[in-house]
Amino acid sequence: MRHSPVCRNGCASVWSDMSLWVQKYGGTSVGTTEKILAIAERLAEQRRQGHRLVVVLSAMGGETDRLLSLARQVHEQPSGRELDLLLSSGERVSIALLSLALQELGCSAVGLTGRQAGILTEGRPNKARIREIDTTRLQQWLDQEYVAIVAGFQGMDESGQVTTLGRGGSDTTAVALAAALEADECHIYTDVEGVYTADPRLEPGARKLEHLTYEEMLELSGMGSHVLQLRSVLFAEKYNVPLRVLPAFGSDSGTLISKEAEDMEQATIAGIAHNRDEAQLTMTGVPDTPGIAARILGPIADAQIEVDMIVQNASRDGDSDFTFTVHRNDYAAALEILQRIGEELGARETLGNRDIVKLSLVGVGMRSHAGIASRMFRALAEEGVNISMISTSEIKISVVVEESALETSVRALHREFELAEAA
Amino acid sequence: MRHSPVCRNGCASVWSDMSLWVQKYGGTSVGTTEKILAIAERLAEQRRQGHRLVVVLSAMGGETDRLLSLARQVHEQPSGRELDLLLSSGERVSIALLSLALQELGCSAVGLTGRQAGILTEGRPNKARIREIDTTRLQQWLDQEYVAIVAGFQGMDESGQVTTLGRGGSDTTAVALAAALEADECHIYTDVEGVYTADPRLEPGARKLEHLTYEEMLELSGMGSHVLQLRSVLFAEKYNVPLRVLPAFGSDSGTLISKEAEDMEQATIAGIAHNRDEAQLTMTGVPDTPGIAARILGPIADAQIEVDMIVQNASRDGDSDFTFTVHRNDYAAALEILQRIGEELGARETLGNRDIVKLSLVGVGMRSHAGIASRMFRALAEEGVNISMISTSEIKISVVVEESALETSVRALHREFELAEAA
Repeated sequence: MRHSPVCRNGCASVWSDMSLWVQKYGGTSVGTTEKILAIAERLAEQRRQGHRLVVVLSAMGGETDRLLSLARQVHEQPSGRELDLLLSSGERVSIALLSLALQELGCSAVGLTGRQAGILTEGRPNKARIREIDTTRLQQWLDQEYVAIVAGFQGMDESGQVTTLGRGGSDTTAVALAAALEADECHIYTDVEGVYTADPRLEPGARKLEHLTYEEMLELSGMGSHVLQLRSVLFAEKYNVPLRVLPAFGSDSGTLISKEAEDMEQATIAGIAHNRDEAQLTMTGVPDTPGIAARILGPIADAQIEVDMIVQNASRDGDSDFTFTVHRNDYAAALEILQRIGEELGARETLGNRDIVKLSLVGVGMRSHAGIASRMFRALAEEGVNISMISTSEIKISVVVEESALETSVRALHREFELAEAA
Repeated sequence: MRHSPVCRNGCASVWSDMSLWVQKYGGTSVGTTEKILAIAERLAEQRRQGHRLVVVLSAMGGETDRLLSLARQVHEQPSGRELDLLLSSGERVSIALLSLALQELGCSAVGLTGRQAGILTEGRPNKARIREIDTTRLQQWLDQEYVAIVAGFQGMDESGQVTTLGRGGSDTTAVALAAALEADECHIYTDVEGVYTADPRLEPGARKLEHLTYEEMLELSGMGSHVLQLRSVLFAEKYNVPLRVLPAFGSDSGTLISKEAEDMEQATIAGIAHNRDEAQLTMTGVPDTPGIAARILGPIADAQIEVDMIVQNASRDGDSDFTFTVHRNDYAAALEILQRIGEELGARETLGNRDIVKLSLVGVGMRSHAGIASRMFRALAEEGVNISMISTSEIKISVVVEESALETSVRALHREFELAEAA
């Protein structure tokens, strides 16, 4: 049944096979009963075509925030198993409503909680991980020709507690179910048409990609592309589940994410990602002694602040400059800690900049194409864009520039690497 | 630990014992986070006094209706297991919030779904019954000094499905838990001070009762008194669980409902109940042959219409008159059916009256006091109230009168039986 995702153009044949699909709809897609009815219509049509369907849902848009707000009215910092109990109620509502809507259309459907779908979790409340999935009952429903509607983002741990996977965990639920059921594809329905070569709001010439590798998608997700959760892409890669990102209300075939196929003509660059959520901190004139990085980043980590890019340059006189980025929300706290450490270490200066943006070129083709970095830096220089940090990985080159240069930079790179034309 | 509820005046000693109490708060009582915080304060105080507490909650006021309304937007007649899944989400929210509120006050609390509280159900969705309760885990939480907050109105059946007990089932959950845990008392918190000798809106002299027997409460509940669900009173009687109806926000000791105690000076009449939800249907000149009642009521039952009072009088010429009451919502449907049957049977007339009210005198003391019925009829006659139906049971006399005579009738009976004075 499983087909090989070799076609870069979303072959029609993929869609007419009788397949087992796991689909996931996010909160916006099930935000109103009208939208739920529209999704039910589509699912009923897919059933008529013979496809077997497992549908994972998030809570109705805004519901999780409403529940969190209620919790904050009775507790300063709601957490633990009671928060899980609270938040997991949101998905029960959406799965019950979609099941009822399908039944109204004469289509057999069953709503299943995480527990009922056999999702066993481990780890702490609010941030549990899926340990294993017992698909016995789910398979029974599918064998009886039911559409199985599963509550995303939740499961049950060994002691019978309801646990949630953390926000956005519905993508992970879908991918994990697809892996466990050996589904033909996992469809993630979103409010975009697919994954683009760049943000279309910045670059009108941005093109929707027909295909991406897991690695490329991982780099894009890590960059703050909100199309897919990082964890779900990791999961998909690990179990080799073909992922397809599709528009919830439209007929586009979206973007397929799978492993690199041998017979695939790989584009050099898949796309340009950017992340506006970071801020940059720099300590100059740091004595260049062993353990200095740990000395600086230790207190930052102790304050539960996550660090993204880290760059250290040796400078002329045996000192070094140390620069890193954190989430903008953590900027003030990180700067205060850094100033204290700077005084202790006798650093020359402690500087910060909130108004930066991180830009990345992503593409597995980079591996076999030399000179990408220098083309990137030259293209930015020609636009007068100043680069303050550089960091590279095997399939990604990231730079930090002033936020004001974001649009100019994206357009320059999109042009330089001819991303508007299909590879 | 269990004390005998012999004191008619809500003895203070009952309240200072260290007891195990099962308490139930309805939707109105947990309708806002402010109210949830107020309940948390009271529970924390009761814990400080050393009481062990199990608290059963309904969904926040209005939530069940909101969920039902969503369901009706996607399905003409929502039902079955998906409706249960939907509705059971409401209690998860309230139990999680109250648990969090107690934790914020430094009081150990745990929220438990019906399943987690060990409530095993049987029967069909939306109207399941509690089959048994496995209190092992609940008892473990209590032994660890936790306040256990349990989702009312729900459980799990043998196949692992979430089931609901039907609306208002939270009272039953509380009583069943009290029975299973052998609690000292089961407290049902409501928006009234307790059970009254008559509706205080009709009779300003109505007095709160300190004590009632199960039988009396059953008759009052059956009469549409919304203080307690009929099923929960039956359950309490069966397992001899002392029930106390209390105001959710106040310090009144409410009304205790328990079995008749030997040393209790029983008042003749506990109170006057009325029910405005019924309508009356009459067929006159029905041939008085065997099976005629079944012939008339069979088609009514087939239409899922419930019948309350039934009165049949033989008339002079071998015919009889047949009168019964149904819920007002079923009046039109019942009248149509009755007209059809009337024609088939060759009845003289088929009549109906929507604007009636059923009035009942309730009291176990009736058994040993003769002449109650005639005093009742005379008191009504003196006010010019016409009685159209009479039906009696061992501890209740019910009459049907014109709705316009309701207030006059309640006041006349309250005066006649001197209900304003404590027995």
